[in-house]
Amino acid sequence: MNAPDTFSHLQPDVSLRPVPPALLAALQARFGVQYSAAPAVREQHGRDEGSLQAPPPAAVVFAHSTQDVQDAVQLASQYAVPVIPYGAGSSLEGHLLAVQGGISLDVSRMNQVLRMDAEDLTVTVQPGITRKALNDAIKDTGLFFPIDPGADASIGGMTATRASGTNAVRYGTMRENVLALEVVTASGAVIRTGTRAKKSSAGYDLTRLLVGSEGTLGVITEVTVRLYPLPEAVSAAICSFPSIEAAVRTTIQTIQLGVPIARCELLDANSVRMVNVHSKLNLREEPLLLMEFHGSPASVKEQAETVQEMVSEFGGTAFEWASTPEERTRLWTARHNAYFAAVQSRPGCQVITTDACVPISRLADCLLDSVTEADASGIPYFLVGHVGDGNFHFGYLLDPTLPQERVAAEQLNHQLVARALALGGTCTGEHGVGIHKMGFLLDEAGEGAVAMMRAIKQALDPQNILNPGKIFAA
Amino acid sequence: MNAPDTFSHLQPDVSLRPVPPALLAALQARFGVQYSAAPAVREQHGRDEGSLQAPPPAAVVFAHSTQDVQDAVQLASQYAVPVIPYGAGSSLEGHLLAVQGGISLDVSRMNQVLRMDAEDLTVTVQPGITRKALNDAIKDTGLFFPIDPGADASIGGMTATRASGTNAVRYGTMRENVLALEVVTASGAVIRTGTRAKKSSAGYDLTRLLVGSEGTLGVITEVTVRLYPLPEAVSAAICSFPSIEAAVRTTIQTIQLGVPIARCELLDANSVRMVNVHSKLNLREEPLLLMEFHGSPASVKEQAETVQEMVSEFGGTAFEWASTPEERTRLWTARHNAYFAAVQSRPGCQVITTDACVPISRLADCLLDSVTEADASGIPYFLVGHVGDGNFHFGYLLDPTLPQERVAAEQLNHQLVARALALGGTCTGEHGVGIHKMGFLLDEAGEGAVAMMRAIKQALDPQNILNPGKIFAA
Repeated sequence: MNAPDTFSHLQPDVSLRPVPPALLAALQARFGVQYSAAPAVREQHGRDEGSLQAPPPAAVVFAHSTQDVQDAVQLASQYAVPVIPYGAGSSLEGHLLAVQGGISLDVSRMNQVLRMDAEDLTVTVQPGITRKALNDAIKDTGLFFPIDPGADASIGGMTATRASGTNAVRYGTMRENVLALEVVTASGAVIRTGTRAKKSSAGYDLTRLLVGSEGTLGVITEVTVRLYPLPEAVSAAICSFPSIEAAVRTTIQTIQLGVPIARCELLDANSVRMVNVHSKLNLREEPLLLMEFHGSPASVKEQAETVQEMVSEFGGTAFEWASTPEERTRLWTARHNAYFAAVQSRPGCQVITTDACVPISRLADCLLDSVTEADASGIPYFLVGHVGDGNFHFGYLLDPTLPQERVAAEQLNHQLVARALALGGTCTGEHGVGIHKMGFLLDEAGEGAVAMMRAIKQALDPQNILNPGKIFAA
Repeated sequence: MNAPDTFSHLQPDVSLRPVPPALLAALQARFGVQYSAAPAVREQHGRDEGSLQAPPPAAVVFAHSTQDVQDAVQLASQYAVPVIPYGAGSSLEGHLLAVQGGISLDVSRMNQVLRMDAEDLTVTVQPGITRKALNDAIKDTGLFFPIDPGADASIGGMTATRASGTNAVRYGTMRENVLALEVVTASGAVIRTGTRAKKSSAGYDLTRLLVGSEGTLGVITEVTVRLYPLPEAVSAAICSFPSIEAAVRTTIQTIQLGVPIARCELLDANSVRMVNVHSKLNLREEPLLLMEFHGSPASVKEQAETVQEMVSEFGGTAFEWASTPEERTRLWTARHNAYFAAVQSRPGCQVITTDACVPISRLADCLLDSVTEADASGIPYFLVGHVGDGNFHFGYLLDPTLPQERVAAEQLNHQLVARALALGGTCTGEHGVGIHKMGFLLDEAGEGAVAMMRAIKQALDPQNILNPGKIFAA
């Protein structure tokens, strides 16, 4: 690991590039009311849900169409000015910060379903539609889109960060579920990648290259994703455990046995307490697994029985909790709001969130040592995890007036990532690199692989205008 | 579509680059008995299973290690000479042809299992191990590797072409099943991409970029793939249909209902006849679906019953055929040998194989019109399909002494691809582009996307030494 005892990434390097007034005038002329340089609008577009900060962009353009995106990028390209695509603003690693200045390109108003192909289990949408709005729009088709990061993120943003969530253990991540894209490149060209066919060997996999590229290789203007039939039967269980270890060992065994579990979420006692307060629930304040099974009635029953045996074996108590869809929704909403519940538990706090993901057999090793370290630090924290995938998040709740807390939390994060990498894992399972994890990416991938990423970036964006200063140093 | 009435790709453009004697001397000095310039060895390495031809490479290096690959690439790089990675030689689209001269780098002796992680359902292998050898090596673990192109291809080659096969409808393709790679780049650097974690958002997805890059971006020296628990229960069925349409409509409905079928293979009456002769079977010489169900005993029963209802609805007859693993293996081996059975049915013939893949709802439209056209052409052909994925192959069996047959077959292929693209599909579901489909890729992806591929290639291989002249014109 580089620089184990300094934290140069505590705040980002800011190196503003000039934004010529002529560009702003041209954007204003072209976009009229879709253009804003108002301080409040710029401020809102200059930050994300993470704790890093930088000066806001010089202006914001609200795109309504691919043509708008193309025109904005072409103008920016003409002046070699950075363009930062903006969806729901829910990223966590500083992805949206204008660390080199430039303009924010807000695509949240491009929020339409363009084409529904229920019989092929695909839908094509504009990038600004959020995951909840998408599921709302298709709710009469008997299909659903399973990828669910905590926030109600935009589909474009989820594509750009290779997002996942609680259903990924069964349905995969954006990597597996994006079939095709329309993208505006750095030169302002519109290209299409992929098709609606389920598989293809037609040349380089540009779709997968763009998924997870964090706005640095192109601005996404259309996304075709896979949908799934709503399961015939759903059953869910809340299982309490005497220890985090018991919950984790139950998870590992469930996955190794090949149970096709749809959701397998860990909450530590801290998280349960925060969620109880925030969502007015009364879950037992012990380590919990929230599990959900999808399938035919027979298959769901079989899965639940198999898992119940394992829960008992590890000293857990399973409470059947399958009753109504409303109750299930209430619980999953509470789980998705865990981050906000935690923020509320220490008013005014800043949160540093970890995102390691390890091979399932190493999950206990990785997670339990990090719990010990977090307990010893004295910093308030919570722990939630998509543990079926080997992915988990500590959230350290920092008092921003106490810089030593931030240093200590970064130290905990550093130790945790070092441990995950040593166990064959990754520094980020689903949040992306942004600014915050640039050092970790170098540790994980090595100089050679990062050099390959940088060469691709330079080839596709020679002026370095697309969300510059993210993922790796230019 | 470009050039609808000319077939400039009937044979490849050959444009040999110089191979300095000093390079051959240096390779011989470095590799000794692992180096050969014998005509028979060069000839064997200068072709694949497809029908395109070109002069053989100037020499062949047999790599035993990553260090060997690195040294060979570094020497070739020093002299700016092409390097063509070679695995099992089973590609179909001219992937291995030395159209710009250079050396063949045979990795078939790099065939070891390097690391088995049964508890994480992953294995790391050298690129030369074949899919059957891999399954043989892990047969005591209770796990298997499902991807099965017809040939006993190498895992490295399957990675390079983004291969799939009969199990892809359930288990995905190489795109979904490769977790991590070790690769030697054009400059001779060794890089690693990905980790053993199930998911990651750590920077550009270099793994997915390299999967399907056909040896043009790096030489694969290690591959980590996902494994699956051998299913608790397996049941299979042979279903005869009065028409191809009835078989296809049964397939479409099976997929749309979300039945998690493991294999769903179509054989037309021609294929059945050829397979019966070649594999000494006596299947009914009618359109057939070969189906297989994996899961728990209850789930397999449920799947089979659901499908059986649909088979009846479309006038088919289901023959239960679950009995012994040996019988199943015999049938699937016969299916995998369909290509060779077809070649045998017209001695001395050359085969042009199509590989379109379309969204499942468009499968009948795409496939049936192509059957009508093939019948009208009078050219002997067979039709097999991974129809559960919307992917199917016509094989046109050509008399090489009759050039008009080749022109007619290319015309059929052209019409078929045009139809597939118009229906939202791809020109290649699993074989890759190689040389043969370069024109089709341009039709499918468009100039802009191919320009992006070319820019990536130029950035990562500025001397154009890694399998040049494939996928797109340099």
